[in-house]
Amino acid sequence: MRQAGRYLPEYNKTRARAGSFMALCKNPELACEVTLQPIERYRFDAAILFSDILTIPDAMGLQLDFVEGHGPKFNKKITNEDDLVNTIQTDPYEKLAYVGSAVNLIRKNLDTNIPLIGFAGSPWTLACYILGGGGSRDDFIQVRKWLYNRPELLELLLRKLTKNIINYLTMQIEKGADAIMLFDSWGGLLSHHNFPIYSLQYLREIVSALKKQNPSIPTIVFVKGGGLWLKSIASIGCSGIGIDWTVDLKEAKQIGKGKCAIQGNLDPAVLLGDEKYIRKEVRKLLDGLTVDEQKNGYIFNLGHGISQYTPPKNVEVLVDAIREY
Amino acid sequence: MRQAGRYLPEYNKTRARAGSFMALCKNPELACEVTLQPIERYRFDAAILFSDILTIPDAMGLQLDFVEGHGPKFNKKITNEDDLVNTIQTDPYEKLAYVGSAVNLIRKNLDTNIPLIGFAGSPWTLACYILGGGGSRDDFIQVRKWLYNRPELLELLLRKLTKNIINYLTMQIEKGADAIMLFDSWGGLLSHHNFPIYSLQYLREIVSALKKQNPSIPTIVFVKGGGLWLKSIASIGCSGIGIDWTVDLKEAKQIGKGKCAIQGNLDPAVLLGDEKYIRKEVRKLLDGLTVDEQKNGYIFNLGHGISQYTPPKNVEVLVDAIREY
Repeated sequence: MRQAGRYLPEYNKTRARAGSFMALCKNPELACEVTLQPIERYRFDAAILFSDILTIPDAMGLQLDFVEGHGPKFNKKITNEDDLVNTIQTDPYEKLAYVGSAVNLIRKNLDTNIPLIGFAGSPWTLACYILGGGGSRDDFIQVRKWLYNRPELLELLLRKLTKNIINYLTMQIEKGADAIMLFDSWGGLLSHHNFPIYSLQYLREIVSALKKQNPSIPTIVFVKGGGLWLKSIASIGCSGIGIDWTVDLKEAKQIGKGKCAIQGNLDPAVLLGDEKYIRKEVRKLLDGLTVDEQKNGYIFNLGHGISQYTPPKNVEVLVDAIREY
Repeated sequence: MRQAGRYLPEYNKTRARAGSFMALCKNPELACEVTLQPIERYRFDAAILFSDILTIPDAMGLQLDFVEGHGPKFNKKITNEDDLVNTIQTDPYEKLAYVGSAVNLIRKNLDTNIPLIGFAGSPWTLACYILGGGGSRDDFIQVRKWLYNRPELLELLLRKLTKNIINYLTMQIEKGADAIMLFDSWGGLLSHHNFPIYSLQYLREIVSALKKQNPSIPTIVFVKGGGLWLKSIASIGCSGIGIDWTVDLKEAKQIGKGKCAIQGNLDPAVLLGDEKYIRKEVRKLLDGLTVDEQKNGYIFNLGHGISQYTPPKNVEVLVDAIREY
């Protein structure tokens, strides 16, 4: 849940050297450097690739830009069937080779005891950004219109994305990723009826394809706002489920029992608080579990990306509180 | 779920005459006019007061403004204990008398068969805006910091707000409101552990106070993103629960059975779609219920505010589809 890493001064320095966020993503040496920074500082149990979920649509020809203070923006927009059909069927080994090189370099430079997590956005979440032309301030309402307007076009896009994501993640695994995480950051915008149709079935397809090709690589699926759907998420064959802070960890553990590990749950806002509250929240969260549940199949993590306003020392306090517990 | 009413041309005309959104809120004649507009156009089964959840903090002295394209903004900010302690303990009969006059006028002009719903924001939701100085683009992360930093100050604010909300809603009932709706628009930002502490207990206090004073007035509680907590919401004594579109209506009905009516559930984005999909979604939603569940204790409604981009004719289609069904 590194969310780029803007809370770390060393990240901001490297980013400044790169010139722009996308230049940083596309430079394997610098991407490796920022991937390792939090590991060096905090000795986390795992590293996650520094990259962005929007590398795929960028490689599909939509030309991604990050506008300061406005977030992601695509210079090319998809507004009709023609745009969609003509969208390039990217071969990730070519246009996304920079990510493969970064994974390769990181794996070489990372302590062999520390697993490297590769990742991608979910098809639905990428579709939100693609059809929205970038980020949104109103819960992608204009994108959600496609659900009730041109569902067949939306499905076409989702199928294309699914294929690209499978290829992209396969490449990451080949280059050295030890586990894969899928981020469905906007899954929670879908209705109870539509989540299985427009997001979960594609997540299932990706998880199955990866599992078939690489049975030993764990897959973690995180659906922000998906707490109501944990049972169905647990049924798609993933090794782990990421949960946000609205979920009752105890219940999630029961749903995952014997099937999926559970990861996450801490409100990222805790890290903006005082030390005593950070320690208190860690205890509250872990005290809710039995010793068996604490020890087996639970991965401590935030319930969403770390805030850029997080004081770096608070992450130290968090790690210390968890290890002490 | 009228969300002001920007999708209606007649609303926009009246708003233009008023000069600003707040001038419209503070003018009982114009507030009455816009409250009645959707009733005249669509013959809805109930009317909801035109107002804003931020009238209370405005009356508390924070000076609310709506900046075009940027949403609500308070000119006075609460940043420390002094600000908080010195915040005016509003008497709603005075500073919010304009809302009372509007309710009174609407009740006189509204068909006697059509109930008028009064409303207020929840203490937690108002606290988000107050401590955030207005709206937020990052899920009120700087406000959520107070949860883990100065919880005692946050609680002080929540208690003040609870008192004001009770007085405010009591006034609305005295002036003619036939039912009350509480909007906890940001309840879903709280963690599983914190929702009961920082939102639900105050909602319970408000519902209890209103019920004690006016046992015949129904209260509806809507927590956006609160689908995981329906059981605890159903336990606070409210007459109805509003649900967003991520919730399984069938499950909500089972949780509410014998206790609370269920209201809502349709994704507001449906209304941006084509007629055939609007009709299809209505059928899908209602087909999931037994005839008994359809007829008893279910109020058809959107799962959140109507989008400003909604074509007015689509609302006609929706009402027609529901009545036809």
